[in-house]
Amino acid sequence: MELQARNLIGAASVQGEGEAFTAFDTGRGEERTPQYRSATSELLEQACAGAHQAARVFADSDRALRARLLETIAANLGNMEDAIVVHATSETGLPEARIRGELARTISQLRLFSGVLTDGAYLDIRVDDALPDRAPPRPDLRVINRPLGPVAVFGASNFPLAFSVAGGDTASALAAGCPVVVKAHPAHPATSELAGRAIQQAVAECGLPGGVFSLLFEAGIEIGQALVADERIRAVGFTGSRKGGLALMQIAQSRTEPIPVYAEMSAINPVVLMPGALAERGADIGQAFAAAQTNGAGQFCTNPGLVVALEGEGVTRFIEGVAQAYAAMEPAPMLTRGIHAAYCEGLSRMADHAGVRIAAQAPEGAQFTSRPTLLQTNAETFLGDDALSHELFGAASLLVMCRNEAELHRVLHSLEGQLTGAVHVADSDLDAARAVARILEETTGRVIFNGFGTGVEVADAIIHGGPFPATSDGRTTSVGSLAIARFLRPICYQGVPQSLLPADLQDAALARLPHRRNGKMLLPE
Amino acid sequence: MELQARNLIGAASVQGEGEAFTAFDTGRGEERTPQYRSATSELLEQACAGAHQAARVFADSDRALRARLLETIAANLGNMEDAIVVHATSETGLPEARIRGELARTISQLRLFSGVLTDGAYLDIRVDDALPDRAPPRPDLRVINRPLGPVAVFGASNFPLAFSVAGGDTASALAAGCPVVVKAHPAHPATSELAGRAIQQAVAECGLPGGVFSLLFEAGIEIGQALVADERIRAVGFTGSRKGGLALMQIAQSRTEPIPVYAEMSAINPVVLMPGALAERGADIGQAFAAAQTNGAGQFCTNPGLVVALEGEGVTRFIEGVAQAYAAMEPAPMLTRGIHAAYCEGLSRMADHAGVRIAAQAPEGAQFTSRPTLLQTNAETFLGDDALSHELFGAASLLVMCRNEAELHRVLHSLEGQLTGAVHVADSDLDAARAVARILEETTGRVIFNGFGTGVEVADAIIHGGPFPATSDGRTTSVGSLAIARFLRPICYQGVPQSLLPADLQDAALARLPHRRNGKMLLPE
Repeated sequence: MELQARNLIGAASVQGEGEAFTAFDTGRGEERTPQYRSATSELLEQACAGAHQAARVFADSDRALRARLLETIAANLGNMEDAIVVHATSETGLPEARIRGELARTISQLRLFSGVLTDGAYLDIRVDDALPDRAPPRPDLRVINRPLGPVAVFGASNFPLAFSVAGGDTASALAAGCPVVVKAHPAHPATSELAGRAIQQAVAECGLPGGVFSLLFEAGIEIGQALVADERIRAVGFTGSRKGGLALMQIAQSRTEPIPVYAEMSAINPVVLMPGALAERGADIGQAFAAAQTNGAGQFCTNPGLVVALEGEGVTRFIEGVAQAYAAMEPAPMLTRGIHAAYCEGLSRMADHAGVRIAAQAPEGAQFTSRPTLLQTNAETFLGDDALSHELFGAASLLVMCRNEAELHRVLHSLEGQLTGAVHVADSDLDAARAVARILEETTGRVIFNGFGTGVEVADAIIHGGPFPATSDGRTTSVGSLAIARFLRPICYQGVPQSLLPADLQDAALARLPHRRNGKMLLPE
Repeated sequence: MELQARNLIGAASVQGEGEAFTAFDTGRGEERTPQYRSATSELLEQACAGAHQAARVFADSDRALRARLLETIAANLGNMEDAIVVHATSETGLPEARIRGELARTISQLRLFSGVLTDGAYLDIRVDDALPDRAPPRPDLRVINRPLGPVAVFGASNFPLAFSVAGGDTASALAAGCPVVVKAHPAHPATSELAGRAIQQAVAECGLPGGVFSLLFEAGIEIGQALVADERIRAVGFTGSRKGGLALMQIAQSRTEPIPVYAEMSAINPVVLMPGALAERGADIGQAFAAAQTNGAGQFCTNPGLVVALEGEGVTRFIEGVAQAYAAMEPAPMLTRGIHAAYCEGLSRMADHAGVRIAAQAPEGAQFTSRPTLLQTNAETFLGDDALSHELFGAASLLVMCRNEAELHRVLHSLEGQLTGAVHVADSDLDAARAVARILEETTGRVIFNGFGTGVEVADAIIHGGPFPATSDGRTTSVGSLAIARFLRPICYQGVPQSLLPADLQDAALARLPHRRNGKMLLPE
């Protein structure tokens, strides 16, 4: 498939006229071709106008048609697999197996939301029938979730497919019935283009208005910021840095009409190692930890950046396990030169810290590769320096040694909101783990026993979210079927004639949809 | 019941040491006794500390116990009915029947949430069972809604019971398992005290920690603002002015950790009169409109402040109906001197507007009473002056005459987000009403046919909310069973041992709760 290096504005492909940029292959150490040109404000205007024009038709489209749209995108992506693998591995430095796996995940995410649409429970339909003889009479009341309107989605650097152009934010927004304007991440424009064309083509194949989807390229940040400020945009999905997320939140709050921003930002995802678990299988946990930490060169939002344990012999075995795993690893290139530079700098700063030392480290690799490292400090040092709890994006984690449980609890209490919190236990640890689990429950979106946060299952029973600053809105998730809720709002219809109700709220539709009627939950046969 | 005029700090009653204030009886034109003293920052600190300490126990309390708490509050309020009527009528100028009705509503709201707790669907439980043989294996995944933590609630001036100390925000937050710190509205301290004591007593009767509920009095705004800024507070419920709501949003966003603010602010709730309906029953609609507009002296958030109609004979009959209804009305005292003064000033400003005239007006009444008024202008004037679309709190509405449907649509499109939008139709209007209904759907929380927004049903199928600035968060409602969702967030438990799961997520509990398991919705027998 030949790359066109054009912005996708609804059904059209348009050459940008802004700043030019290219991706960089960190694995080969070379600039890629073709050159992409940033969208100008004129293209942004066209994308937003198209989304706005398409919003009503798309909101009123059949769920079955939107399910077909998602299935068609999934199929189109599947057909492009080889091209996607070529470009995505080169643009991200990630290995082929990971890209194939991530593409499969992206496709299954789209299909999950197709299933959500068929099921219909996400509509949360409620009907309270009219009571004309009551004093005062009760009118017919119906509530249904409706789409918010056009959504801006920002592609993430670290998941060129699953959290990017055709990723979870786009899939859930399209499922909700919201047109999407994506601002591609400049680190992987070719992968973005391919995914964007898969969507653009699917929109056409399903006979939907082109404005349902647009894709803008940009080297910088101005067009992305203007997108969030545009009054036609009604919600924002973002996965990226804390600085970027906070900036978008600020823009969204400063609008004449503020809009929700679902920003997934920074997290260090504490892992607590309980003494019984360490005594039983310290080295194994160390091996498993190293595998989780170095997955995707450590460039996961759920990467275990903090390990907390009580002093003792078990910890030594854990460190040995980590070191052993590191020794057998191939150095992996990082996503971009910028991310690699920030990683190296952060790692040096940590290692140079007076109270921190290196407990285990992988051998040095070629340029732009990550060097998996486990640093070590004690609770007192950790609690005395906020900087030690900041995210260091990449394969670097800090092991904090605690003298007793109280100190361990203080370390956990000192943390900001997190995506995940994990605890490794043996049966003998269960009593002591209760208090740890409670702290993690209050500060994270997902509490994990005997596992790590990396590898977020795409499912009904998943939350990929968490209290600020892990995300901007801890009441939501960006992975799993519940993610659709971010782009909906409930509307009440009081005494509205059948023919003017949304199709799913009409009497004829209710028998086929789960709904609550006069206080009772009813499921279709 | 003797008034104590004290702040309720958990189980204790404490004399404030801040600014003194009294309520004013607008019906009798006199200051009331006793004097209340504002809480100081020391009492605020105690209230927040108590709420924080109680949060964990309350979050883990049985749903049945919280249901009992709500039922006990309801019963305690019922036992105080006569005392509440004496004080609330005097503090608000509202008639006895309205106060008795509002108390019944408040009690039924508490009982609604007791039913929500018994039902358990609000937990939105999701279970995806472990798949140990899959590659990679899937761990046991469970999601449940958990309480956000302590909630700050601000009493509204216009509903001294249903949107105040023991109102919908408090009922839904307590149901969710969140401790509540209420900042009473200074216009009705005695009513607030009684409701607060009903809750304080119920908390004790149910053996819950006192910190589950506190009530702070304040003449000014500093303590309320500090309450929203307090890091232990996790969400805010507010009903009041746009200025007040925006200020709280700003404080909440500026915190180290921003929190959600559910502020219900201003709305003018457009009412569209279609030609067929006016021809068929113009005078009747006028009478019904006047009744809705003057309900509670027009001091409803859902008050119909804007009427939009096509020019024609039917409108004349509508105005005649309004005038006829006005002529038969008793002037009603307004809530406070301040509200009355702002109403008079706003009414004068509107009446003095070059393009506006008075179409119908009730006779002048005694001091502090409202003077129901229907003003009239044309679409061109309305569209040319933003000030004409601002809320004027009280019984005053603006009728906007349009020359054609396109102009009528322009008027509707020009409006900000609203709580409700109503359209009055005859069968002959249905085609033309479709476009109107669509505009209202996009800009309001509740679309009403042949009715008015006043009288918000407490039900499953109700939304009392709407796009900004009607509320700060159009994805939620402050009335009805869905209101509980504002104070919850979903948490995922991955591979967590049964004994460490929240009770409702354990296998033993699932059979008695609606939940989604492996993609299938299951209801208890």
